Amino acid sequence: MTLCQFNQVDDIRAILAALPEADSNAIALATDRQGQLTKPPGSLGRLEDIAIFLAAWQGVEKPRINHPLCLIFAGNHGVAAQGVSAFPSEVTAQMVANFSHGGAAINQLTRAAQAELQVHPIDLDTPTADFTTGPAMTGDEMLHAMTIGAEAVKDEADILLVGEMGIANTTSATAIAMAVFGGDASQWTGRGTGIDDDGLKRKQNAVTAALKANAAELGHGAGIMASLGGRELAAIAGAVMEARMRRLPVLVDGFITTAALLPFYHDNRAFLDHCIISHRSAEPGHALMLEKTGKTPLIDFNLRLGEGSGAALALPIIRAAAETHSGMATFAEAGVSGGE
Amino acid sequence: MTLCQFNQVDDIRAILAALPEADSNAIALATDRQGQLTKPPGSLGRLEDIAIFLAAWQGVEKPRINHPLCLIFAGNHGVAAQGVSAFPSEVTAQMVANFSHGGAAINQLTRAAQAELQVHPIDLDTPTADFTTGPAMTGDEMLHAMTIGAEAVKDEADILLVGEMGIANTTSATAIAMAVFGGDASQWTGRGTGIDDDGLKRKQNAVTAALKANAAELGHGAGIMASLGGRELAAIAGAVMEARMRRLPVLVDGFITTAALLPFYHDNRAFLDHCIISHRSAEPGHALMLEKTGKTPLIDFNLRLGEGSGAALALPIIRAAAETHSGMATFAEAGVSGGE
Repeated sequence: MTLCQFNQVDDIRAILAALPEADSNAIALATDRQGQLTKPPGSLGRLEDIAIFLAAWQGVEKPRINHPLCLIFAGNHGVAAQGVSAFPSEVTAQMVANFSHGGAAINQLTRAAQAELQVHPIDLDTPTADFTTGPAMTGDEMLHAMTIGAEAVKDEADILLVGEMGIANTTSATAIAMAVFGGDASQWTGRGTGIDDDGLKRKQNAVTAALKANAAELGHGAGIMASLGGRELAAIAGAVMEARMRRLPVLVDGFITTAALLPFYHDNRAFLDHCIISHRSAEPGHALMLEKTGKTPLIDFNLRLGEGSGAALALPIIRAAAETHSGMATFAEAGVSGGE
Repeated sequence: MTLCQFNQVDDIRAILAALPEADSNAIALATDRQGQLTKPPGSLGRLEDIAIFLAAWQGVEKPRINHPLCLIFAGNHGVAAQGVSAFPSEVTAQMVANFSHGGAAINQLTRAAQAELQVHPIDLDTPTADFTTGPAMTGDEMLHAMTIGAEAVKDEADILLVGEMGIANTTSATAIAMAVFGGDASQWTGRGTGIDDDGLKRKQNAVTAALKANAAELGHGAGIMASLGGRELAAIAGAVMEARMRRLPVLVDGFITTAALLPFYHDNRAFLDHCIISHRSAEPGHALMLEKTGKTPLIDFNLRLGEGSGAALALPIIRAAAETHSGMATFAEAGVSGGE
């Protein structure tokens, strides 16, 4: 059963006002267990922190990663008409077909990481409106996409991975970051899939125009998302909100996926507490987002593909944290002498 | 059949003088393939470099990781009597028993990463000599341990992971690093499994004394290894040398495992070319080793456990590089439009 209902914008506000917190009892149990495992205290470094994070959100002393669910949402963007991407909009649907046939990077990565992959294209034939002159989506369009996201979260999942596909969506992500954190287009705008210098200039002009055209709506998360987001970004936010209501940990992909969460982080700074950012993207604005949100990514591999690729790449690290924490013997069980 | 025979010290010299190089034809084929895959060029970042590295050493256009072999060598050190470790020497054998029973971190990590784990304790009842007053091993003891390492490499392995267990072996690793790169004990010495301030001072004194006592033997790799190494370090070096003769890529663990390769890196700077360093250890000397050898680790997680744990943790990243490179569709195969 889906816990988040997005019938009206007030539903979002109600959810953000009552976000569930981590399980403090599970944190205490998991922290105690860490000190008893057959290793010098602290020697598993960040894996120990991740294990306790998983315990905290799964609400158990011994977390496990048995059913990772990777959701990719795809959408098209009216702003693509401004020449902001190196690829034409039809690539969104072509890549969705590639996902279906198993030929994309994310297919290989989720198979290798033993994660279930579900791809949700959302109204690809109906791009959002060009947000350089007004809002990308109506409120209802945004709520519809958020509902698709929330309903895609399955009961059996024990961790959620989120990713996206959508030509021109780094432009949307850049505009959202500027709306939430301020700064100007030159700070936040990168080359996305690899646009040239002229394209970069068009992209900077587009995000600057978008913030001006939608200025009246940028004071709250739902306004930022509807004005500057896209269907796949709204769906990601809906899925991550649903995960939060379920206390399900989330592994976020890169620049665009992080941006999809920022409108609601704007409304409640605790919104990302159940999320780990998988990697630092090559897109320059991502490092700035990580700095602003105080998040440390797991890996730094210069990825800039999207599709949830960074999340799937990092998933085995999360599993390793759970497996060491939950599977190792204690000093007492193994008959190993403790330290000095 | 084992390719490396270590009957005398000259055998090592002969191997180092004729190290096989990477397959340039496979590099060309793999590089060409990378440009055709359904992703923006370069968008898989470092994964692309790793895929080409694997192709180079496996000697094929499409590398695969189907049989990773993780070798842990264990040994005891006479220098432990100087009070340089937070744990007593009997912990080496206790941890080997823990490995056998599946209770250690490395058991969970290799199971999660689908790697075969083989543990080789070497003469645990006969610690090396205390190297603060003379060589840790005779030449024959070193050659015997290197032979154990070389013979442990199996034909079916398509990547080798190496790790170690040995109370007091960060002291040995520190002494080796100083012998190879210079500098003084305060730069290179860390807390290992977690020694206190007095222990740290004893450890610094021990490595300083070791370099003085063995000064005459430190001009060449075999002398450094016999004087300052240990059985598990020599076995690691033997295994990695055997891997090189087979053109088998190697995933190195952390501080001690890297140190085990430095004596022969001292003799031939190309010795590490088939090796990837899995992680940057919390042990402060590791960052310095990485800087000196020009190696960039895959992850930086503040690990300081040994046992091959960092290598096993990073293995899924290597597999992801192989799987994306070898499993993705090309633009032509998938009917996806290219970039501008």
